[in-house]
Amino acid sequence: DAPVAFILGPCQLESLAHARMMAERITEACAPSGARFIFKASYDKANRSSIGTERGLGIDEGLTILAKIRDEFGVPVLTDVHEPGQCAVAAEAVDVLQIPAFLCRQTDLLLAAGETGAAVNVKKGQFLAPWDMGNVASKLASTGNERIMLCDRGTSFGYNTLVSDLRGLPIMAGTGWPVVFDATHSIQQPGGQGTTSGGEREFAPVMARAAVAVGVSAVFIETHQDPDNAPSDGPNMIPISELAGLIDALTRFDALTRELSLKP
Amino acid sequence: DAPVAFILGPCQLESLAHARMMAERITEACAPSGARFIFKASYDKANRSSIGTERGLGIDEGLTILAKIRDEFGVPVLTDVHEPGQCAVAAEAVDVLQIPAFLCRQTDLLLAAGETGAAVNVKKGQFLAPWDMGNVASKLASTGNERIMLCDRGTSFGYNTLVSDLRGLPIMAGTGWPVVFDATHSIQQPGGQGTTSGGEREFAPVMARAAVAVGVSAVFIETHQDPDNAPSDGPNMIPISELAGLIDALTRFDALTRELSLKP
Amino acid sequence: DAPVAFILGPCQLESLAHARMMAERITEACAPSGARFIFKASYDKANRSSIGTERGLGIDEGLTILAKIRDEFGVPVLTDVHEPGQCAVAAEAVDVLQIPAFLCRQTDLLLAAGETGAAVNVKKGQFLAPWDMGNVASKLASTGNERIMLCDRGTSFGYNTLVSDLRGLPIMAGTGWPVVFDATHSIQQPGGQGTTSGGEREFAPVMARAAVAVGVSAVFIETHQDPDNAPSDGPNMIPISELAGLIDALTRFDALTRELSLKP
Amino acid sequence: DAPVAFILGPCQLESLAHARMMAERITEACAPSGARFIFKASYDKANRSSIGTERGLGIDEGLTILAKIRDEFGVPVLTDVHEPGQCAVAAEAVDVLQIPAFLCRQTDLLLAAGETGAAVNVKKGQFLAPWDMGNVASKLASTGNERIMLCDRGTSFGYNTLVSDLRGLPIMAGTGWPVVFDATHSIQQPGGQGTTSGGEREFAPVMARAAVAVGVSAVFIETHQDPDNAPSDGPNMIPISELAGLIDALTRFDALTRELSLKP
Repeated sequence: DAPVAFILGPCQLESLAHARMMAERITEACAPSGARFIFKASYDKANRSSIGTERGLGIDEGLTILAKIRDEFGVPVLTDVHEPGQCAVAAEAVDVLQIPAFLCRQTDLLLAAGETGAAVNVKKGQFLAPWDMGNVASKLASTGNERIMLCDRGTSFGYNTLVSDLRGLPIMAGTGWPVVFDATHSIQQPGGQGTTSGGEREFAPVMARAAVAVGVSAVFIETHQDPDNAPSDGPNMIPISELAGLIDALTRFDALTRELSLKP
Repeated sequence: DAPVAFILGPCQLESLAHARMMAERITEACAPSGARFIFKASYDKANRSSIGTERGLGIDEGLTILAKIRDEFGVPVLTDVHEPGQCAVAAEAVDVLQIPAFLCRQTDLLLAAGETGAAVNVKKGQFLAPWDMGNVASKLASTGNERIMLCDRGTSFGYNTLVSDLRGLPIMAGTGWPVVFDATHSIQQPGGQGTTSGGEREFAPVMARAAVAVGVSAVFIETHQDPDNAPSDGPNMIPISELAGLIDALTRFDALTRELSLKP
Repeated sequence: DAPVAFILGPCQLESLAHARMMAERITEACAPSGARFIFKASYDKANRSSIGTERGLGIDEGLTILAKIRDEFGVPVLTDVHEPGQCAVAAEAVDVLQIPAFLCRQTDLLLAAGETGAAVNVKKGQFLAPWDMGNVASKLASTGNERIMLCDRGTSFGYNTLVSDLRGLPIMAGTGWPVVFDATHSIQQPGGQGTTSGGEREFAPVMARAAVAVGVSAVFIETHQDPDNAPSDGPNMIPISELAGLIDALTRFDALTRELSLKP
Repeated sequence: DAPVAFILGPCQLESLAHARMMAERITEACAPSGARFIFKASYDKANRSSIGTERGLGIDEGLTILAKIRDEFGVPVLTDVHEPGQCAVAAEAVDVLQIPAFLCRQTDLLLAAGETGAAVNVKKGQFLAPWDMGNVASKLASTGNERIMLCDRGTSFGYNTLVSDLRGLPIMAGTGWPVVFDATHSIQQPGGQGTTSGGEREFAPVMARAAVAVGVSAVFIETHQDPDNAPSDGPNMIPISELAGLIDALTRFDALTRELSLKP
């Protein structure tokens, strides 16, 4: 079993300089633990709570920046796509296409993503049971793509709240595809601040630890140098100053999970 | 206050002949009650549970059929759109564009739909609280479109189950936009049959009655001449043979709601 | 089918004078509609959110007052019991014993209540599915008691929130026992105010209407002359000044439900 | 920080011989890890799903057996109490009184348990938020008792399903009282088998591991030599043959949690 990997980055691209600074600090945070990571950032926040908030740099500038990060830092990069027509172009710039949770049942988007041959990380809809993700993976796999990851980012639980049902991790692993736990979106409070989503940042490390003890292939964590002033997802992102400690703890829990042969 | 209106039709378009037959039988079912209806059918089931199920006739043939139904029967027609690029072309053929629940936060789709000037019926995501629909309506209204309808089709409640929180109807009406209750999707069991959704058809009339007693502008009901053999949503569609009785009951409950000035 | 009946009264007994005043005003509110009611009040709030709140007059004084109300007003009276030992003594003073929702699975309490021969109204636990109430009723019925009522007061939905799944009403009616809808507790927000429960009073009439349109044997409504200053459940009780209008509306909806033969 | 402790035993007492055999095998399972445990068993299943299932040996025989186990094995013993009148007598035989989840808001039961001076383990109601347990603990603490444990055994999530929200563990720890995670009831499916509860035994070790990685004072695990033929809770109990391996894994995860100073 491979050690746990990480998907790390800011919620959205802000500028090339910002992406470089984040990639550099993430590299530094992972180095002591020898942790491998994929750099993550969005070029477009296509489904924000309200119309009056920042959407991002757009696909052209965004992909250019991501391709530069990939080249300069020698790390794989990931971004999310929102329409079938974006998949092929994004796949030229990035290594992993991500399907947002709201869109995880959109057949055309899944097929277009799968057909690029890029790895695809698909997030479980907040409205889906973990066992429903087998059908989602089958849509992707119907294209011949065998680089599929299934990601849990929480499940609807009453209003403006998500819950992480960790039983879902081994259930999704039962499909045979690697499973990712999204530690920062799982603790989001959707719509919880009126026109933006809230969150309780302090629970992200807690839930990440729990997921790694259960056994996952990767952990997804959004991070920022100044979450309280980030253009999106501030309430749930981890300050980058705390990332090294978290990565260290998670790799140690993962080592124990693997030593005990408990990883699904 | 206007009497309750209806949005009626099969889940998906099967052929011109089938659409004509359905429109005719729906017209007959509504006539005794004097009920107004919008004919509804989908040209593409873009987010079905699994890849192996019927998607529909496609946008070209579908819109042609819907335009014919509109002309021949003199009724407004409604269909759902799935990508921004579909909105303008669909708006030429139909009177009402519908935004599927999973897509209700996709800003570009909402803007493209709003910009057509057509009426837009947006379904509340199963993952959203009713008060979150104000932000969704604002995205639409930002285009200057003032023909917005907000539709409740159930809220995630545990796995493979939806619940209708009827408090959501007056809460959504508080936005000032007319509110629609979707009686047949609200009682769906998403993914409840492995590769398709289940449902308990007998509860659709029950919930429709409750919603009309609470007070709504319109009720959305999918119907079919043979639900058990319909290409999609069979478990929750109403047999068309039962439609006249249901429309009659609902218009009578609505008359009482209006007489008592209880409609929001 | 009998017209809908009502279970009406303040959350808790405050004094004989208060109970008399409430019974008188409830009698006046029901008279124009010819509605039958059972007078409800608690002698002990045995499971309040926190230790620092008012529990009530206690069983001795409470039962004395309830017996007086029964005699003076010629109405049946109902109260809730919390331990097996309270059942026999309460059954001497009241017509209906009520099993609180949290206690609806306590076998000894159900058996003791059933054995009194008094009618028993058992509330569905917030943690139970409606179909689970068949087993609860069977515990009661095992005593030979055939005067059983099943009452829906909401189901847990995320934290500090209840939802009313109205499908539960016909499902519970499928047991053959009459079904009661509790309109004021269903809209409670348990623990929602820190050390007391919150609620949104304005939704009680809305949900009561919906339940009557679905079809129920009785509606349970707590009412008070000054809810904002009541010793318990103020946020969800109906002001008594609004009771007559509500009873009138509900009896009219019920008449329509019965006319259309829709009552389960 | 003390190492994680365990509360272990069969769901219900079956006989003195059975309790001895279980205590012996549990002692053997804990010895290699040096884990401390409290022996748990119920003398009465007072709230079973249906009337036709086994309730247990009763309080007199049950307490006699528990007192013998305590003496013979030199371990603390725990049992659950259901009415205020049982607390004082139970506290003579056992070290820890347990308040069942359904009863966690019953003020008289909490006060009676607290007044014995015995340690009290109170389970969070499936209908309560973790932050609501502060009020529950305050009821207990109002008696002067300072030996309080708060236990999470899952939260209602739709029908016939529980979910473990692990954020609840640090939230409850914020009260200052030690927190227990109940790994076998958390994965129960209440009422999920018609007249009994179901469960998915394989998830109990998974969730226990997650809870220990989050950080808890103790883990509660029901175990049996033949769960499939146990008189209650068979679907979710751990076979005793697997207990030693589980205790070993959990103590190792706990050691890492403590080493990293992550325990709340």
